[in-house]
Amino acid sequence: MKARITITLKAGVLDPQGKAIEGALDALDFSGINKVRQGKIIDIDIDAAGETEATSALTEMCEKLLANTVIENYAIDIRD
Amino acid sequence: MKARITITLKAGVLDPQGKAIEGALDALDFSGINKVRQGKIIDIDIDAAGETEATSALTEMCEKLLANTVIENYAIDIRD
Repeated sequence: MKARITITLKAGVLDPQGKAIEGALDALDFSGINKVRQGKIIDIDIDAAGETEATSALTEMCEKLLANTVIENYAIDIRD
Repeated sequence: MKARITITLKAGVLDPQGKAIEGALDALDFSGINKVRQGKIIDIDIDAAGETEATSALTEMCEKLLANTVIENYAIDIRD
């Protein structure tokens, strides 16, 4: 079963990498950019009996290792 | 207009960060993990007349700055 975990910074958390991208786009003369935020994805191929089991295992992985839940949100998307 | 750019490594490109995550999940006794690949997302809020203009500007940003097209794929998803 394939799943994609999307990890984004919570609203209000400073995002220096996003700011750097914004600055670089500006330096390259791209205009009309209001805001840039950066995040990460983790694609996991996992053996699970069903979608519920997979989501439950992936939630535990996010809580324990993959996301820093103090400053980050995560979303789990089972793809097949 | 809000857009999400998803950047992933092309198939066949080594992914040490993905391997590290796989190793860490294994060390935490999570089982049934077959493969882990890591990528990034960039959320951009951009002023554009329409979806076509936004996609065109974002494609240029990806080609010029955001993605390394030798080893990375990118996908643009206009969200509103």
